[in-house]
Amino acid sequence: MKKQWHKIMDGVWRLRLGVPEALTPVKLRRVPMAERNLSAAGLTGNPRPHFAADRVIFKTTRRGCLAMLPLGKEEAVYGFGLQLSSFQQNGRKKTIRVNSDPRGDLGDSHAPVPFYLSTRGYGILADTARYCSFYCGSHADPPHGIGVTTEELYRSGKTEDSFTALDVPTASGIDLYYFAGPTMKEALQRYVLFSGGGAMPPEWGLGIFYRGYSPNDQKATAELAAAIREDHIPCDVFGLEPGWQSHSYSCSYLWDRKRFPAPEQLIGHLHDSNFRINLWEQMFVHPSSPLYRKLEKYSGDVKVWNGLVPDYTLDTPRRIFGEFQNKELIQKGIDGFKVDECDHSDFIRVAWSFPEYSMFPGGMDGEQMHGFLGIYAQQILSEQYLRNNRRTWSNVRASHALGAPYPFVLYSDLYDHRDFIRGVVTSSLSGLLWTPEVRQCANAEELLRRLQSVIFSPMALINSWMLKNPPWKQYDIERNNAGVPLDDGGELQEKCRKILQLRMRLLPYLYAAFYRYFESGIPVFRPPVLEFPHMESFRGTDDAYFVGDDLYFAPMIAGEQSRKVFLPPGEWHDFFDGNKIWQGNCEYEFSPAPEEILLFVRCGALLPLAAPEEFVSGRTVYQITPHAYGRADRYCCRLFADDGESWELLQKPDCGMTLEFRAEDKVCRISAGKHARTERYRIHEVKCMGTGTIPRKLS
Amino acid sequence: MKKQWHKIMDGVWRLRLGVPEALTPVKLRRVPMAERNLSAAGLTGNPRPHFAADRVIFKTTRRGCLAMLPLGKEEAVYGFGLQLSSFQQNGRKKTIRVNSDPRGDLGDSHAPVPFYLSTRGYGILADTARYCSFYCGSHADPPHGIGVTTEELYRSGKTEDSFTALDVPTASGIDLYYFAGPTMKEALQRYVLFSGGGAMPPEWGLGIFYRGYSPNDQKATAELAAAIREDHIPCDVFGLEPGWQSHSYSCSYLWDRKRFPAPEQLIGHLHDSNFRINLWEQMFVHPSSPLYRKLEKYSGDVKVWNGLVPDYTLDTPRRIFGEFQNKELIQKGIDGFKVDECDHSDFIRVAWSFPEYSMFPGGMDGEQMHGFLGIYAQQILSEQYLRNNRRTWSNVRASHALGAPYPFVLYSDLYDHRDFIRGVVTSSLSGLLWTPEVRQCANAEELLRRLQSVIFSPMALINSWMLKNPPWKQYDIERNNAGVPLDDGGELQEKCRKILQLRMRLLPYLYAAFYRYFESGIPVFRPPVLEFPHMESFRGTDDAYFVGDDLYFAPMIAGEQSRKVFLPPGEWHDFFDGNKIWQGNCEYEFSPAPEEILLFVRCGALLPLAAPEEFVSGRTVYQITPHAYGRADRYCCRLFADDGESWELLQKPDCGMTLEFRAEDKVCRISAGKHARTERYRIHEVKCMGTGTIPRKLS
Repeated sequence: MKKQWHKIMDGVWRLRLGVPEALTPVKLRRVPMAERNLSAAGLTGNPRPHFAADRVIFKTTRRGCLAMLPLGKEEAVYGFGLQLSSFQQNGRKKTIRVNSDPRGDLGDSHAPVPFYLSTRGYGILADTARYCSFYCGSHADPPHGIGVTTEELYRSGKTEDSFTALDVPTASGIDLYYFAGPTMKEALQRYVLFSGGGAMPPEWGLGIFYRGYSPNDQKATAELAAAIREDHIPCDVFGLEPGWQSHSYSCSYLWDRKRFPAPEQLIGHLHDSNFRINLWEQMFVHPSSPLYRKLEKYSGDVKVWNGLVPDYTLDTPRRIFGEFQNKELIQKGIDGFKVDECDHSDFIRVAWSFPEYSMFPGGMDGEQMHGFLGIYAQQILSEQYLRNNRRTWSNVRASHALGAPYPFVLYSDLYDHRDFIRGVVTSSLSGLLWTPEVRQCANAEELLRRLQSVIFSPMALINSWMLKNPPWKQYDIERNNAGVPLDDGGELQEKCRKILQLRMRLLPYLYAAFYRYFESGIPVFRPPVLEFPHMESFRGTDDAYFVGDDLYFAPMIAGEQSRKVFLPPGEWHDFFDGNKIWQGNCEYEFSPAPEEILLFVRCGALLPLAAPEEFVSGRTVYQITPHAYGRADRYCCRLFADDGESWELLQKPDCGMTLEFRAEDKVCRISAGKHARTERYRIHEVKCMGTGTIPRKLS
Repeated sequence: MKKQWHKIMDGVWRLRLGVPEALTPVKLRRVPMAERNLSAAGLTGNPRPHFAADRVIFKTTRRGCLAMLPLGKEEAVYGFGLQLSSFQQNGRKKTIRVNSDPRGDLGDSHAPVPFYLSTRGYGILADTARYCSFYCGSHADPPHGIGVTTEELYRSGKTEDSFTALDVPTASGIDLYYFAGPTMKEALQRYVLFSGGGAMPPEWGLGIFYRGYSPNDQKATAELAAAIREDHIPCDVFGLEPGWQSHSYSCSYLWDRKRFPAPEQLIGHLHDSNFRINLWEQMFVHPSSPLYRKLEKYSGDVKVWNGLVPDYTLDTPRRIFGEFQNKELIQKGIDGFKVDECDHSDFIRVAWSFPEYSMFPGGMDGEQMHGFLGIYAQQILSEQYLRNNRRTWSNVRASHALGAPYPFVLYSDLYDHRDFIRGVVTSSLSGLLWTPEVRQCANAEELLRRLQSVIFSPMALINSWMLKNPPWKQYDIERNNAGVPLDDGGELQEKCRKILQLRMRLLPYLYAAFYRYFESGIPVFRPPVLEFPHMESFRGTDDAYFVGDDLYFAPMIAGEQSRKVFLPPGEWHDFFDGNKIWQGNCEYEFSPAPEEILLFVRCGALLPLAAPEEFVSGRTVYQITPHAYGRADRYCCRLFADDGESWELLQKPDCGMTLEFRAEDKVCRISAGKHARTERYRIHEVKCMGTGTIPRKLS
């Protein structure tokens, strides 16, 4: 059969090789492609794949099937979902296998995705939930002549055109999807729109999340929440860990009435204090759950922690589970979930999850289901929120292909700070969200550094499930739980509050950037290679990234005295002292104090900075002081002014506001879409920043 | 088809499930079963499997096939070849996948084996080179009632009878081999004999191995060897790293005549100085090798470092490669090899090895070949030495099922000392050999501790490929290579020499123990669980082990001030001060100084301690002072008195000598087999040790 590219939507093409499997991410998708968004996203035309279909080598093998795609020697390759251990993937083998706590750099992750992006300006998705492996040019022959050193031979994969090999076990065929550019960024946008568009948070989802001490009962939970308000720590979401349930590991999905005698009261009380509530859950259904009997016949043949693993490829169990969650929890005021352990357990002492050989009534085996379980968790819960015309911003520990539209942020029990920062940029390149959550710390510096990076991520999460008291009262876990506070007169708490307030100051800016992600698929947090794919300086940069269009953030790790930052082209202002200006396209070394943040503002930007709220709601009126940087003639920025929490924006998307500031008359003009709730933003006088001089480049 | 056990040899049974693959370790074996050794090994009768064949559940799946075997709640499970990260495997999933530098505890290793042993007294081999996974009871349902804590549920796999699940990808069937006991030790013996018997070293293989600095040329090599002799450091084998070849990574198998202008001269010179010579090699054939053209058409479709991967399932390439090695190297005086990188590269930055999707002319794919390449390396080279009536004691970086008969010791670029010690005992439980080789160290204590453990392993290897000078001159790598020696007046060297001399003092004892391994399959270095499978105290003991029958060694790790040792039943003497006696079946805490070794001698043992030679040869006459421990009436021990290096023992196995010492008349009687070369041992007067008192047990 002749190989042919088949158009799926403008700039998205499918190549069918062999006889693909029946149960795949694309075939089982429940969120439609966001084709309608192409023009709003600025993606015009219908660019074709840059290589002919017949250049793809395909064969079936005893083991499954193999596809080999051209890979030019100049291409740098990224992607494969959340990858904590590596960024650029040339020369590497990546196996797409969902797992918790992965060690090594095998491809395993909470959310691996069979998708890659090339600096050549395209993306490829392999439509399978199998543990497929990508070899990113690693088996290229060396160039001409005979190398004489090991180093020379190791480099060989990059010195001539080669291929990306995709090894799919078990399958007799595979659908490959090609996402055209012309740039890498546009290819990613097309992938995100093909997935259904980017996830859209409620405004409160961009506030601060705090998860309380696991053993806390109702009283202790209420007290902890009250203490956060008393301390004026910004906080929008309070999370409850497994203890809320009468049985967890696996789950009853019922309140433990001994420890939480009156959950309705707690929910009411927390809501009255302007907290949203997030509950921990698993997908494994314990015999004591009222769902057990109903789901038993729709479940796989191996239990996990004695709990059912329902097959949510089937409509009936999806409906049963979704309706229960809706009726018992969502409608009773639960605003989000943390869906734990829907990944896998190869790297753990005890292999707790269902094995690959499990079989499910819908026809999947365990290998496939590991790619789907996290996706189904997100899907079912999102659908219930949509049904209630509410948005959520939740957590999930597994995702996979086409995960972009789900308002779920990935997290991990791992904790290496550098890896956590890398996760922000790798996840974004597959349309996923990741939080480098903050837990206990070795010292005050670490707490500050971790908070500084978590506020520049899709979820500013302090996950104190193992800490009785907030970490700024005591970062050390033993002392914290022994009730020994820091003896610093609240100094650390004050520094931490300032960091969290910075998140709140940026909230309107981030909210508008997320709307853009939702609409056009451009991730809010993105590595510089996405903007400058041909700049060699950025090809390995996984430790500094854009935050929206106008901010560039370079996180510090505790213990580092200084770090280098290669600033993108243009001129950049210090966020905190706008008069400090740096020439871009150049590398600098900075030595910020532990409480200082390396945050740069693009010259010419208008930043809609808000007075920091402690929490937000539809009643919040943001006090915006636009900051104009540099000496441009005209500045502008966007705000998104909807109700901040419903799905009304689907019907009434024209909620945008534009602020425009002209240097000549010093006036800030506001224009607004038809449905914009302009009353939610009070715009103060523009502050002009940056009359300083540009420092010399480093030699 | 009815499931049936089919007898293979006494106490070894096969269960054929489905339609097994054509290319498997047993089907491609080249070393016959050592059935003839059963009686010499003391394995009598024909014990049947302890469970009926129809209790095994078998099904084929889309992914491959699945077998589930009974696993009693009282059983503890071990095996799976060399495993550096874990010992007892209950509750774990292990994937049998050959890899270098594995991280995590997934089953990957240089030498994973689809074989496990149970304390119930049996072993199971799955005859496949595929990446099969064993689930050792990990998915058992919890017991009666509902657990209320996570801990309770996590433990569940051990609280009731369950199963071991074996998941084999791609295959439509599998042959399972059952090795009967009645004890775990006998089951292991049967597995080793089924594999062809244990590996038999030449005497010199039990001496000290030293590998020189990689960049050394002929002159520097000769100088380094001379310096070792001048320092009176015991050394039997000198190893050359890649630099000897005109091309390595991949290999030419030719001397680099620029750096080694006269290799014949070097070989002669080293032999004259009583060194054996070991050469580094890979299995990948570089275009500049005279073998390249001859092997090209017999090779896989993917090259490694531009080198061929010949398919040695085929006779012709095996003959071509073997004869070249024989003619050009073995017959010219090379005594052994280090076969590097025949494993795999999933955990490495660049995936350098051939991918699983590779295809080989004999019909294997890359997945299977990864299980075989290390085995073929060992097989081809062993066959050539056998043909020359010489023994070798070599290194290899990969092995798999049925690896026992090959005189190749595994090693790794990893270096965690605790993991390295664990490797000694895990490898032995699958009939494999492993050296916890010594390289550079952080301090003198680490060097001493590592040397202490390496001398109690199948190969006492100092691998200084990255050190200009021996580590006892300078353990720190930078200073060593900068030529900055320790300023300790040779104190560390003296301590190290003493440790190495201890190996030499034990050489006759170890040689006899290895002959027993060769003949009966009882590993020389073995964990106490093999002797006492039902003692709970030993089920997790992977940091202390038997050395032969009469010694028990408890290694220390640098930085430890003390360690606990649970001594096996009986009474135990301190090796160094025989008057210190400890009651066994009891735990003690010891705090040895860095140069002190925790080595215990069984009460009642007669140890044939030798005066330490600097090297051994067929001309060596061992000066033996038998040491009698405790107050028995009669003591005895065995020596093996052949020529120490030829395969004559195959025709003339009765080379054993027995020393018997009776306390009553203080006379040591010597009896010898017909072909024993008794002149090689000069037996001195017996030294009686241990008139001290037994210390009280710890409370």
